[in-house]
Amino acid sequence: MDLRPFYSSGPAPLTPDPSGGPRLPAIAPTADLHLDLVLRQRLLPAGYPAHGLGQLESLALQLARIQNTPALHFDLLALDAPQLVVFAADHGLVDEGICAMAAQMTEQQVQQLLRGDAPASALATLHGFELTVVDAGMATPVNLPAGTRAKAPLLTRKIGYGTRNTMLSAAMSPAQAVAALHAGMDVVRHLPGNVLALGDVGVGNTASAALLLSRLCGVPLADACGQDPSLDETQNRVRLEKLFAAASRHRKATATLDVLAAMGGFEIAMMAGAMLQAASERRVVLVDGFAGGAAALVARQLVPAVMDYLVFSHRSADPGHRLLLIHLQVQPLLDLELGVGQGLGALLAWPLLTASQQLLEH
Amino acid sequence: MDLRPFYSSGPAPLTPDPSGGPRLPAIAPTADLHLDLVLRQRLLPAGYPAHGLGQLESLALQLARIQNTPALHFDLLALDAPQLVVFAADHGLVDEGICAMAAQMTEQQVQQLLRGDAPASALATLHGFELTVVDAGMATPVNLPAGTRAKAPLLTRKIGYGTRNTMLSAAMSPAQAVAALHAGMDVVRHLPGNVLALGDVGVGNTASAALLLSRLCGVPLADACGQDPSLDETQNRVRLEKLFAAASRHRKATATLDVLAAMGGFEIAMMAGAMLQAASERRVVLVDGFAGGAAALVARQLVPAVMDYLVFSHRSADPGHRLLLIHLQVQPLLDLELGVGQGLGALLAWPLLTASQQLLEH
Repeated sequence: MDLRPFYSSGPAPLTPDPSGGPRLPAIAPTADLHLDLVLRQRLLPAGYPAHGLGQLESLALQLARIQNTPALHFDLLALDAPQLVVFAADHGLVDEGICAMAAQMTEQQVQQLLRGDAPASALATLHGFELTVVDAGMATPVNLPAGTRAKAPLLTRKIGYGTRNTMLSAAMSPAQAVAALHAGMDVVRHLPGNVLALGDVGVGNTASAALLLSRLCGVPLADACGQDPSLDETQNRVRLEKLFAAASRHRKATATLDVLAAMGGFEIAMMAGAMLQAASERRVVLVDGFAGGAAALVARQLVPAVMDYLVFSHRSADPGHRLLLIHLQVQPLLDLELGVGQGLGALLAWPLLTASQQLLEH
Repeated sequence: MDLRPFYSSGPAPLTPDPSGGPRLPAIAPTADLHLDLVLRQRLLPAGYPAHGLGQLESLALQLARIQNTPALHFDLLALDAPQLVVFAADHGLVDEGICAMAAQMTEQQVQQLLRGDAPASALATLHGFELTVVDAGMATPVNLPAGTRAKAPLLTRKIGYGTRNTMLSAAMSPAQAVAALHAGMDVVRHLPGNVLALGDVGVGNTASAALLLSRLCGVPLADACGQDPSLDETQNRVRLEKLFAAASRHRKATATLDVLAAMGGFEIAMMAGAMLQAASERRVVLVDGFAGGAAALVARQLVPAVMDYLVFSHRSADPGHRLLLIHLQVQPLLDLELGVGQGLGALLAWPLLTASQQLLEH
């Protein structure tokens, strides 16, 4: 594998143009003030306090707007065949020893997901989500013990055997970043239904998310990183110093795709692609934790209208995630201090979507 | 109706003694450190961050502790036949014209609940809750239009035709307060299942809840009341002045039952009774909004162990509710800025209970 820091030689920044940039789908904004007015009256009968349903009202309106096409009037709303796609990848940055979780947890979580005994498997079954696991770029092959029957399909869309260590070089090449975006779009294109929950598994991806947040939104890196409660004070300081060094190495990366290539992850890039494709097909997209939020940030920079289709399911235990949601100006549905990815928060928020839909149809 | 302010004559404070006080059921605390340890390991396999399930972990442990008796090991956990009981009552204080909602909304909401077209009806159906409406003390009879078939039973446990105006006298007599507590217990005693969600309908009951919070927890009344966004600045000032006058009239009421009688409501007293009875039968109790929180405050003062059985479902739009939850030292599951009662928040939080249970059994 070529480990030379090719970024220092300064290639031309990527643009969404034919010259090697990604082919991005067109996304229609959903705003419809008349629809909002009609639905508000329908949600709560006269006599109740204005906005008495609080955030549930905004959610119901968003879902209706997404499904409101001339072909499908909101009387016919239906959230159909919900899909959970978990993107798994490894991060070269874990070589620096700054992650609390062991590197092999990426593969172990994928195994659990395939066997059906991961936390997210239990909830996917409970709420009727079909689960697909995507190897976006794991460092190791997934070896299910002999005789084990996989309960969920594993799609291999491997862009590389883990990203490169962003301390030493760009995490991926510009071509890899584009390939990951395209792979994410492609995965969604072949899935049924109009609801897509995105999960991620990737030890080290919160560090990557913090770097992306810091660069793309101008958040001070120390705030974007926060303190990892699983690490002691010294370890936290070392972690921050290393991330500062990485950010400094890639200080010239400012265009979205350059930042993604320099400091992102394969699963983050693929989730961004998946969001764009799903939005272009008018699917409801449930976004999970910090890594998913970072993917939303990337997707929004590429096609701002994608935001109309994203439902932010929860605020995780990660302090950077809180800042990210503030920068996206979104209010998540849950705040349960989750520290597990896999789309768990998205699955937990799902019943609020069906409830808001129920209130609308009532 | 006798409207003389009997409280100024200074009757002996109520105590939970044979002399006219309530008969309170015995409630067993649920703490079990060994169980917690076993369950924590079971919830998340090795390798995940500690407490990676965040608040879902605490919830799963609470549910397991409630159901953990020598007779029923936690391998056999089952949330069974969930009940939603909505207590409806009117408040004499609405005569002062300080409520944004029209007084007749109590009856209208009850009608909607009976006909099955209230917001809570839709969610009760969605989540499989059986709904019972209790007339705890409505000012007007409920007249369903001729030919309308009630979809939920209406239990008449009327303590009075609305409370008296707490500005002019105690809201209820000590005997009425005790009768309401007993009625709440009695309602629960006749319901099946091991899950009880409590809802309330009662225009003016947030004012009553604010008065109870202020007196029972020593919260400044201005903070407990907050600003009602449906009222303008002058109306908010008048409202606060009137509540100050009420609090001042009942300044001698400090014992829990005295405070409840002086400034409470029939539905609040009945919910407190229902909580105590449900806890004594080891049922899981889902507490809804500000009025439900005030009932929890009363119940906790009477039998502190009741807290082990209460699941606080959400934080409502009411600023006083936020303070109340802080005083109870509990973290609610949702924060959706709801302004509708009826147990709506409890129903919305319900899927988190089933999810945490699912993670445990997985």
